[in-house]
Amino acid sequence: MHQALTAAVKAAGAEIVPLAHAEAVVWADPAAVGMFRELIDEATAASWVQLPYAGIESLADLLDNDHKWTCGKGVYADACAEWMITGLLAAFRDIPRFARATSWPRQGGRNLLGAKITLLGGGGLAESFLRLIEPWQCDVTVVRRTGEPLPGATRTVTAEQRFAAVGDADAVVVCLALTPETTGIVDRELLAAMPDDCWLLNVGRGLHVRNADLLAALDAATIGGAVLDVTDPEPLPDGHPLWAYDNVLITPHVGNTPEMGLPLLAARVEENVRRWLRGDELLGGVDVDAGY
Amino acid sequence: MHQALTAAVKAAGAEIVPLAHAEAVVWADPAAVGMFRELIDEATAASWVQLPYAGIESLADLLDNDHKWTCGKGVYADACAEWMITGLLAAFRDIPRFARATSWPRQGGRNLLGAKITLLGGGGLAESFLRLIEPWQCDVTVVRRTGEPLPGATRTVTAEQRFAAVGDADAVVVCLALTPETTGIVDRELLAAMPDDCWLLNVGRGLHVRNADLLAALDAATIGGAVLDVTDPEPLPDGHPLWAYDNVLITPHVGNTPEMGLPLLAARVEENVRRWLRGDELLGGVDVDAGY
Repeated sequence: MHQALTAAVKAAGAEIVPLAHAEAVVWADPAAVGMFRELIDEATAASWVQLPYAGIESLADLLDNDHKWTCGKGVYADACAEWMITGLLAAFRDIPRFARATSWPRQGGRNLLGAKITLLGGGGLAESFLRLIEPWQCDVTVVRRTGEPLPGATRTVTAEQRFAAVGDADAVVVCLALTPETTGIVDRELLAAMPDDCWLLNVGRGLHVRNADLLAALDAATIGGAVLDVTDPEPLPDGHPLWAYDNVLITPHVGNTPEMGLPLLAARVEENVRRWLRGDELLGGVDVDAGY
Repeated sequence: MHQALTAAVKAAGAEIVPLAHAEAVVWADPAAVGMFRELIDEATAASWVQLPYAGIESLADLLDNDHKWTCGKGVYADACAEWMITGLLAAFRDIPRFARATSWPRQGGRNLLGAKITLLGGGGLAESFLRLIEPWQCDVTVVRRTGEPLPGATRTVTAEQRFAAVGDADAVVVCLALTPETTGIVDRELLAAMPDDCWLLNVGRGLHVRNADLLAALDAATIGGAVLDVTDPEPLPDGHPLWAYDNVLITPHVGNTPEMGLPLLAARVEENVRRWLRGDELLGGVDVDAGY
């Protein structure tokens, strides 16, 4: 971690110097709470401190109003958004069928380019997804509680409008937090509203999808298939009916793995150091009074 | 096709009108050469004609200098670039292993976000790839004959520098035309120059890769794996050794399929009609004298 973050700082054009001369500090260990205040106080010339990870609960009480604090907020959403695009491309370009072939398969596949995608959820994952997918010129409908427009979305609608919002989708992606309101949101009625060739992706939680309704839709071929990074239960037990479908791809909760976190944080640090050197606004600013 | 292009024109905000009143014409059938001049002459108010597909050999002699002509030039490279990203994501996010699992697999995968990618080839596919991958903040090295810089590439180097250019790559993607110079470019020496966890992707031609050298590298585990949309021979025969590797994914020459072409052309037509209405420069302009 030390090596990766050192390289990020240097790549951005800054130098690594002794703490007493540092204008900015990159704090790498969220667990080393005991040394935190002492070392920060030693960095008398520093006006900005970059903290690791998205959650800074352990350090929140030790922050002050004399520094600008930033953290890894929003960094990890990119890994999950990458999974969303991986799942869409795997589904659209027939990768599971090709991966299982042991003989030259028939051609197939359709494009994600210009496709109609409906996201259930308008939070951090949706934001990252919209940023990554931007050059692909997709028609993206975001369904979110408030219906408040999301930059980059073709349109944003409220949860009540979800049935219409999936009506001509090539794929529907669940990227919601699990709440009482969203539990089981992918039910018989929503699955029935999707076109027969529409794929369902889930990177939220297993309980967003009613398994029995999904299995019924797969059996009736009223959806195109499913790519599931989360299941109910998890791990999905051996012999579960979802293992049996050619048009179901299950990934073992890998939207974001611990190994993916470090390079993403390093990229954030590099970007923030660049911004710092240019005098631009930093990403992931912490509201000290709010504690996050 | 008529339906898709009509919808594209309307989506861009233009109207479909009788030929005699048209300000612009979208010509959909490259084979209907016999009616071409007669119908174009009938469109006396038209100053722009959009032609289909990238190659317009059959119509080239019938064009004049009284109209602005555009064609589908560059449209289809996007489908192949989409395959390149599909292959990268499939490899990096362990999709073949997950697709073959019938029981909850161990977690795995790494990010394409921020990865080091080396492209062998700096033509239309590389251009499309660079445009689509832009938000992913990859470090992209392009190897091309001339070494002339390509917009969006982190660096561009000459073919002679290819061994250094793959030395720290996470993946090497062949997106070259097949010429005597590029035949067998992925040989023992180039494979040896790649890191042990580097993936090889081929969307060029099967003969770009020396099979025996690739098989040796796979057996010695000196590369991470391979994703091949083209093989030598093609189709790859049953029982070919390449079918036997867990870390090889073969797709049956689907970088761009005929079915993918129409929506891509429709998207181009829509974009060009929008540009036409705004008075902006059109995409895919034909040089009438050069004939392409």
